[in-house]
Amino acid sequence: MEMSRRRFGSHVTGAAVGAALAACGAEGADAPAAEAAKKRAVVLVHGSWFGSWCYAKLIPLLQAKGITVAASDLPGHGLGARFPASFAVRPLVDADFSTEASPLAGVSLQDYVTAILAQVASLAAAGYGPITVLGHSMAGIPITAAAEQAPAQIAKLIYLSAFMPVTAVPAGAYLQRAEAAGNHLGELLKADVNTVGALRLDTNTVNASDIQGLKNSFCADVPDADFPAIAHLMQPDDPAQAYGTPTGATAKNWGSVKRAYIGCTGDNTVPPALQKLFVSEADTLAPSNKTDFHTFDSSHSPFFAKPTELAELLATLIA
Amino acid sequence: MEMSRRRFGSHVTGAAVGAALAACGAEGADAPAAEAAKKRAVVLVHGSWFGSWCYAKLIPLLQAKGITVAASDLPGHGLGARFPASFAVRPLVDADFSTEASPLAGVSLQDYVTAILAQVASLAAAGYGPITVLGHSMAGIPITAAAEQAPAQIAKLIYLSAFMPVTAVPAGAYLQRAEAAGNHLGELLKADVNTVGALRLDTNTVNASDIQGLKNSFCADVPDADFPAIAHLMQPDDPAQAYGTPTGATAKNWGSVKRAYIGCTGDNTVPPALQKLFVSEADTLAPSNKTDFHTFDSSHSPFFAKPTELAELLATLIA
Repeated sequence: MEMSRRRFGSHVTGAAVGAALAACGAEGADAPAAEAAKKRAVVLVHGSWFGSWCYAKLIPLLQAKGITVAASDLPGHGLGARFPASFAVRPLVDADFSTEASPLAGVSLQDYVTAILAQVASLAAAGYGPITVLGHSMAGIPITAAAEQAPAQIAKLIYLSAFMPVTAVPAGAYLQRAEAAGNHLGELLKADVNTVGALRLDTNTVNASDIQGLKNSFCADVPDADFPAIAHLMQPDDPAQAYGTPTGATAKNWGSVKRAYIGCTGDNTVPPALQKLFVSEADTLAPSNKTDFHTFDSSHSPFFAKPTELAELLATLIA
Repeated sequence: MEMSRRRFGSHVTGAAVGAALAACGAEGADAPAAEAAKKRAVVLVHGSWFGSWCYAKLIPLLQAKGITVAASDLPGHGLGARFPASFAVRPLVDADFSTEASPLAGVSLQDYVTAILAQVASLAAAGYGPITVLGHSMAGIPITAAAEQAPAQIAKLIYLSAFMPVTAVPAGAYLQRAEAAGNHLGELLKADVNTVGALRLDTNTVNASDIQGLKNSFCADVPDADFPAIAHLMQPDDPAQAYGTPTGATAKNWGSVKRAYIGCTGDNTVPPALQKLFVSEADTLAPSNKTDFHTFDSSHSPFFAKPTELAELLATLIA
């Protein structure tokens, strides 16, 4: 996947989180433990090309366990998606689709972080806690930056076959590493990332090979009959900036937050070798707070094909 | 809108709800009132062509008020959507798209009801209550049937510019009434409902007049720039059966459940005159338990353009 560092000027800063947040998990001394357990909450953050819709099967399964679940569309996603005009022209005119600037090129990593921290603050203000933040795939980037900026507000991070970039190297550069062999998403991109400012897929493709490529990348273990609904809900453009911006993670802040990593064993997008590289670098940065690593036998997006099993595992990991 | 009663054989029966459900709102005598209030929950049920994704803006606003919110995809919707093969062929071949049987033709009203009652049972089993069930638009049909089948499990119904058919007349027939004048969805249907077994729209249309027609029908008050994301997430086929099956509502069961109706004043799909007809018939069936009617200044889908104001109103109505 061609992915060089962009110069959008969007660097993660130690932005002050405006609202005073209720301390996570601070129960009154007279509150029974059972009640406290019922206030635990998890924020589910979706990955690239997805929206909160991807968690529609998982959410009720977690709620059935008494866990409060929040899942919002990241800026530029779901109800906030925007589309290049050339996406609607069929048959696709490659010369246009490969060059049209993305209407989402301006969406920054900090936009994601601000949205995630607002969600966490809102839940805390409503009395929920402790609050766990889970990021799938690309969402590992903003949840890392969010924990760096507001470590006291997040009880735990869960990386679900996610990027976990804690060095000065931006996430996208990891896809050039040998550990990313097996990731074939780059072959499916329909435009140069630097030209259009987005990672652009043709999610409406009728090309059988491309459809298979998308399915293999995102959810190889989903029945063929279920995949068109996923492809339909996916959006073609995913903002490039998050992939090109370092998270700013430090041992002092990000490294102070507990974290688990769920490595999907059949992942073709964040392959097991890349998962292990992320964990290795994370544990080097924060050696006294090592990653709680679990494997899960699934494709890159286990919430589609194995939501029940995933909910079981998550219930044991959510703070 | 051409909509005759289908003979799919899917009639609402008084299906026994299998699981023993925890009584709604039954708090231990020693539980403080404040804790009880925090367990109140609402199930948000989406309308035709939509999925749970339509509530992505509304959900966090309700959660911020301490309300537990559950929203699932109805069978055949969202992640469960299926598509006629002719939908992917562009330019559209009208002869095919207007006649291809819908892969969703077999989805029945009872399928919806079973899913809604399972969601309610799951929340009750996890200790939540009282449980309110909200239905938008078409979802007024299955929430009516769900309350008929399990009145003790539902503390309150909220109809959001929804169908509320409580006579032997199936919902679709109401669209032939004079009170439905102003509903122009029928002009946008791309296939005969009886031929394909679904209400079929071309949600991928590039025809400016059709795009405007869809926007006017669903969310006239949404900024033009926001509509493509909604149209993108919408699915072309919506199963016809729910529109052709009476809900079976009786005064004894359905009529025993408290209900509120939010009538959107700028609704072009369930126009104010039709809203009032539904309320009139409901109050005739259950005169000792009248509809708590509220108006809301919005289009048919207020959760897109006015989620904050809608959340304020809902917080006062949810049991």
